[in-house]
Amino acid sequence: MVDSWLRNAVAEAVGTLSVVFVTVATLGIVAQATPTVLAYGFVTMGMVAALGHGSGGYFNPAITLAMLLAKKIDPIGATIYWVAQFAGGALGALLVLLVADTDVVAAGTPMLNDDLVNVGGAIALEAVATMFLVLVVFGTVVDERAPVSIYPFAIGGALVAGSAALLGLTGGALNPARGFGPAVVSGEWDAAASWLAGPLIGAVLAWALYTFVIAHDDSRGAGWR
Amino acid sequence: MVDSWLRNAVAEAVGTLSVVFVTVATLGIVAQATPTVLAYGFVTMGMVAALGHGSGGYFNPAITLAMLLAKKIDPIGATIYWVAQFAGGALGALLVLLVADTDVVAAGTPMLNDDLVNVGGAIALEAVATMFLVLVVFGTVVDERAPVSIYPFAIGGALVAGSAALLGLTGGALNPARGFGPAVVSGEWDAAASWLAGPLIGAVLAWALYTFVIAHDDSRGAGWR
Amino acid sequence: MVDSWLRNAVAEAVGTLSVVFVTVATLGIVAQATPTVLAYGFVTMGMVAALGHGSGGYFNPAITLAMLLAKKIDPIGATIYWVAQFAGGALGALLVLLVADTDVVAAGTPMLNDDLVNVGGAIALEAVATMFLVLVVFGTVVDERAPVSIYPFAIGGALVAGSAALLGLTGGALNPARGFGPAVVSGEWDAAASWLAGPLIGAVLAWALYTFVIAHDDSRGAGWR
Amino acid sequence: MVDSWLRNAVAEAVGTLSVVFVTVATLGIVAQATPTVLAYGFVTMGMVAALGHGSGGYFNPAITLAMLLAKKIDPIGATIYWVAQFAGGALGALLVLLVADTDVVAAGTPMLNDDLVNVGGAIALEAVATMFLVLVVFGTVVDERAPVSIYPFAIGGALVAGSAALLGLTGGALNPARGFGPAVVSGEWDAAASWLAGPLIGAVLAWALYTFVIAHDDSRGAGWR
Repeated sequence: MVDSWLRNAVAEAVGTLSVVFVTVATLGIVAQATPTVLAYGFVTMGMVAALGHGSGGYFNPAITLAMLLAKKIDPIGATIYWVAQFAGGALGALLVLLVADTDVVAAGTPMLNDDLVNVGGAIALEAVATMFLVLVVFGTVVDERAPVSIYPFAIGGALVAGSAALLGLTGGALNPARGFGPAVVSGEWDAAASWLAGPLIGAVLAWALYTFVIAHDDSRGAGWR
Repeated sequence: MVDSWLRNAVAEAVGTLSVVFVTVATLGIVAQATPTVLAYGFVTMGMVAALGHGSGGYFNPAITLAMLLAKKIDPIGATIYWVAQFAGGALGALLVLLVADTDVVAAGTPMLNDDLVNVGGAIALEAVATMFLVLVVFGTVVDERAPVSIYPFAIGGALVAGSAALLGLTGGALNPARGFGPAVVSGEWDAAASWLAGPLIGAVLAWALYTFVIAHDDSRGAGWR
Repeated sequence: MVDSWLRNAVAEAVGTLSVVFVTVATLGIVAQATPTVLAYGFVTMGMVAALGHGSGGYFNPAITLAMLLAKKIDPIGATIYWVAQFAGGALGALLVLLVADTDVVAAGTPMLNDDLVNVGGAIALEAVATMFLVLVVFGTVVDERAPVSIYPFAIGGALVAGSAALLGLTGGALNPARGFGPAVVSGEWDAAASWLAGPLIGAVLAWALYTFVIAHDDSRGAGWR
Repeated sequence: MVDSWLRNAVAEAVGTLSVVFVTVATLGIVAQATPTVLAYGFVTMGMVAALGHGSGGYFNPAITLAMLLAKKIDPIGATIYWVAQFAGGALGALLVLLVADTDVVAAGTPMLNDDLVNVGGAIALEAVATMFLVLVVFGTVVDERAPVSIYPFAIGGALVAGSAALLGLTGGALNPARGFGPAVVSGEWDAAASWLAGPLIGAVLAWALYTFVIAHDDSRGAGWR
């Protein structure tokens, strides 16, 4: 069992590392919306497809929180996952720093567009977009009626869309580790409230909405196809 | 049964909310074609994958109309879905307003390019592009010979393509709720005829074309793979 | 049987119409590489997913030629498909003309970049890119060892990639109907050799390469998963 | 058996040819990040879907190295694959040269951004991004618990993301053949260390990480769905 947790923790750390490395490098260097949102969604798709059947492929402390509330992981496991995810995020940003410079990492950190949104609004936006992401996790992974094999793509798609919507407002984190990694490496903590509180609130909302409203009682039902 | 309709109505409202929130925020802030059409197609893909096996994942009053004509939903159910979809669309645009400002919502509303197209032309364009979208729904969801598990991606793909084609002409709504949400919040109703009448006409055309011409009589046939 | 051919011909015409309508409108109005190649690949993906289990979802006279060589369609059927595909392509461009103007359709027609490539080179480029596309059709549709359900995405992906590579050289047709539709409507025939001869040559090359070199003799073998 | 190796070698050469042709043409002509990374990921997706069930669809000497370490191919087979892959890459770049000119091929060759990264850093970046790619291969192809049918998309997604992250730093090769092809044709060898050593190191890291840490002992276990 210990061995299994270690394996899963490494998988979660590597997955989160890949997400943060790819998004920080793309946003920091290319600095365009489309490559950044494609990189975010597609690296997650690839890594969830590769590692999701082992550790679950959360790579996101907000998803870990939702799975804890849904009793798909226990408190000790969730704590191990959180440590692995934040450590992976920091390592991903550190790898960018080692080969490029601090400016790149700082430019790859989620930031608020102060002209359009304040801190409360940014938290709300991140909560809403993460709620969609976590609903997709519930609907395609937790719900047994979902078509098989599609969860990596649906999760990646939700990240492309959510980060496209928020990139010019909050930086489009949808994941506390996505913000924490480059922030701890570059020292840019200005948007910490939005990328930390927003996704966690969104995960709780998605769990409540899915569990108490949308999910069928007969969750093992026949499904649609 | 009432409970089931409530659950489905919430799912349809949340799905439509997510589509309108993401597209209004992306078009309103980023104001570029590629992130907008990716956000539109990919949020729909994710939400159809997550919620489609419950409520059907229409998130679009034009698709609801086509399913009513195809007797996949009854008139009471369709009415409930329409209310949920328009309410979800309005709520999605309202969420953008709460955290940003009216200009963002107005810029995220479908608008006509008067230099290139008039109202009649815009209705025709929206009808044609929505006809393709609804044909995809018929061919991948209603038709039992379709490969399993691919409908969320095919539907999302039709939205990426259709909205890319029309973005510079009509705003690329393909969905009355996509136009209604930001219009009711921002007061920009100039393109209402195109995003309301166009998709509904397209849905009727797709239903007629699929039902009377393309569909096989033996719709439970062996299929191709 | 006649009825079945009619149904299939309508499906091929509608599918080709959708491809030409979407690409001509996107290239003619947005005039950017990314939305155009996404629109091309994603509308094809959606339509192949929706209609492919009926008519085969070729939507392309070059694919029809390859399937004729591979004996998946007979000469009468292929002739019907060719008529349907060219008619659908013309109708798709005509729909754009009806609501916009001739300049849009002309701008949406594949054109040669004379600074970089001559007619012979353009034919070669279209042949090579179409060869990749038709190899994908052979490998995912004709070959029974392919993973199920993936052919619409693989075909759409080959079109995104091939049209991205050629957009600035030949216009990236990969399909005679993609060129014929806007050419017959706008009168822009300058690149006709490249979009007509190139894809047909590419289809023959792909058929020969697949049939005589790559395909296993035991084409009903166990496959890889 | 010889016949089988010939068939597989042709498939590997054609697949690698297609990847290099498409990426060199797109980067050399369009010279924008988004079309380039889409072309790279989507041509790989299409070709892996089409040819992967025969030769494995590696199209990349780094993946061949990882499969050799994992004993999925023997040393003679790996040598044949390497020759086929480098020859295919050279042929892909040569096809671009034949129809365009040397400047296009040179512009399509991976190059270092000297302002941001040195040779050691470039090797490290390529190693990290290729490690993610090869982990996806292990997790979706080698691991039998992976959802079926998704490996072409997961691999294509890892290439979209990895090349988006590195395009402005190292050129985003992730594949020695991707660099070798245009380099041998254009004479641009400046980034050879990064696109040759980086991906090979990344493949070894991915193999070690997957085999000794992440993979379950009971690799034929029940899996998650």
